[in-house]
Amino acid sequence: MKKFMNQPDTMLTESLQGFAAAHADLVTLQLEPNYLVRAKKAQNKVAVISGGGSGHEPLHSGLLGYGMLDAVCPGFVFTSPSPDQMLAAAEAVECGKGVLFIVKNYAGDVMNFEMAAEMLSCESATVLTSDDVAVENSTYTTGRRGVAGTVIVEKVVGSLAETGADLATCKALGDRVNRRTASMGVALTSCTVPAAGKPTFELGEQELEMGVGIHGEPGRRREAMRPADEIVADLVKAILHDLAPAAGSEILLLVNGFAATPLMELYLLYNSAARLLQSHGLIISRSLVGNYTTALDMAGASITVCLLDDEIKQHWDSPVHTAALRWGM
Amino acid sequence: MKKFMNQPDTMLTESLQGFAAAHADLVTLQLEPNYLVRAKKAQNKVAVISGGGSGHEPLHSGLLGYGMLDAVCPGFVFTSPSPDQMLAAAEAVECGKGVLFIVKNYAGDVMNFEMAAEMLSCESATVLTSDDVAVENSTYTTGRRGVAGTVIVEKVVGSLAETGADLATCKALGDRVNRRTASMGVALTSCTVPAAGKPTFELGEQELEMGVGIHGEPGRRREAMRPADEIVADLVKAILHDLAPAAGSEILLLVNGFAATPLMELYLLYNSAARLLQSHGLIISRSLVGNYTTALDMAGASITVCLLDDEIKQHWDSPVHTAALRWGM
Repeated sequence: MKKFMNQPDTMLTESLQGFAAAHADLVTLQLEPNYLVRAKKAQNKVAVISGGGSGHEPLHSGLLGYGMLDAVCPGFVFTSPSPDQMLAAAEAVECGKGVLFIVKNYAGDVMNFEMAAEMLSCESATVLTSDDVAVENSTYTTGRRGVAGTVIVEKVVGSLAETGADLATCKALGDRVNRRTASMGVALTSCTVPAAGKPTFELGEQELEMGVGIHGEPGRRREAMRPADEIVADLVKAILHDLAPAAGSEILLLVNGFAATPLMELYLLYNSAARLLQSHGLIISRSLVGNYTTALDMAGASITVCLLDDEIKQHWDSPVHTAALRWGM
Repeated sequence: MKKFMNQPDTMLTESLQGFAAAHADLVTLQLEPNYLVRAKKAQNKVAVISGGGSGHEPLHSGLLGYGMLDAVCPGFVFTSPSPDQMLAAAEAVECGKGVLFIVKNYAGDVMNFEMAAEMLSCESATVLTSDDVAVENSTYTTGRRGVAGTVIVEKVVGSLAETGADLATCKALGDRVNRRTASMGVALTSCTVPAAGKPTFELGEQELEMGVGIHGEPGRRREAMRPADEIVADLVKAILHDLAPAAGSEILLLVNGFAATPLMELYLLYNSAARLLQSHGLIISRSLVGNYTTALDMAGASITVCLLDDEIKQHWDSPVHTAALRWGM
């Protein structure tokens, strides 16, 4: 294992300090318990908070800022943050309209965010993301896993919250976006957790893991490596089976890299997926391509489709200013 | 070698088509000869054009758009584009104030851009970037290599060109930014050219290549893997030796990933480099962290320092709208 680090046990803190220093105009870092808040606290809005294990950057820290998140709780690598992190973050950013937690569906995260919500003195609600159609139940979940579609939920709900919408309305939109979003991924290599020092799983030189999770957990099956078009066809088939969109539906197509796959390959996957989705009569009216929900140093990618409607489109397009997503300002 | 592709010989075209489809609001792709132009042609400005071998994405295609480039000529992987691509691109975007080529200093690129300039009927000039302090002369260059500092040159010159500045003024600023910018990189793994199908070089499990080029060409020396702070110290030392900045100087610090290194590690490198540069009395007033000048699927990173002045800062901060860099609009 070769990683840029000093020691595994200081890696997260050093990385968070670098992130906060590089984006000091946007974010402020608090340590022990660890959380990040916007450099300028927002007022008169639902406080939108996310978090989860580290190793998925830019999710969630890179999505902190105007139009998206108010606070982020980074856990250790692939480990849920603790309730005290969530509670401290919520108390720092709550401003009278309650707290909305956006939580990827993993057992540890769900449990800890529930504990934080119980301890919180203000009103709160939770949107649980579960866009991964690869498997029902899995290593770390009851029910489907939350993966790259979480970025879309956070963008759309974050935008609505900026308008001053109330907690129930924000939660309802988040749940709706989650229901209209489906993802599936594929790994070409494993990832290596720094403290473990060896790959989480083994893949042969001619193998891929179809339906892999973002922690390297197993997907649907181990398969032989094959042309991109065939891989994309399997991913798209699973997604369309789940969403069952009507011909003529407008969609957002997200091609997400797991970190180690170059942009050149991600755009090739986009090309393949876009053609296939269009051949099913779908209209790709919004796109995002890049590394947004990663799995440490894994090579691989996922495809996400979100069925748009006017409200979701409007909140996708609205101004946003975070480290990883920025437009309109 | 596992890559998302169909066949090596269609990989570039498919990837370009995906890029153009995903960013149809920003760019238009022409094939045979291959070049990309802004979706909306600019008027009354110097046309700023760059290009080079593919495999360094988002450089240069991701930097096409308002405030940066007017056209981009993508060569095959790690191969210079041809003069006919450059000529066609220049003729498509020239609008009366001449053409400025921004060219990374590699022998093939320099020769082909010179040929294109000679064939061009309008006025033209060239800014040659050479920010890599690792080696004088190298596998593909006479003189220093142009690497990630090229992004800064393209941002600053692109901004000046939008103001209607003339060709000589744009070239002068580009040359000045290049002189004030120094970079050095380190590889933890090799990269694999798709058509070759095997790694360009071999690195042991406990080795790194200090001063590596962005095509995997040799750097200063093969060394033992060691803590990030020590690696950063060597990179920063070489950069400061070259720039010799006065204490109190304002700088832009760019930590650039070569593609396969996760953001978590890049921010850790930023943290280490920022502290070290501050201990030398330098003021980091602008920052950029991410994968901007990549080397196919190489794991590794480079550090770039640009000595700012008021004019450079103003043009760094000005609005930009490209696939990879966007702010202020």
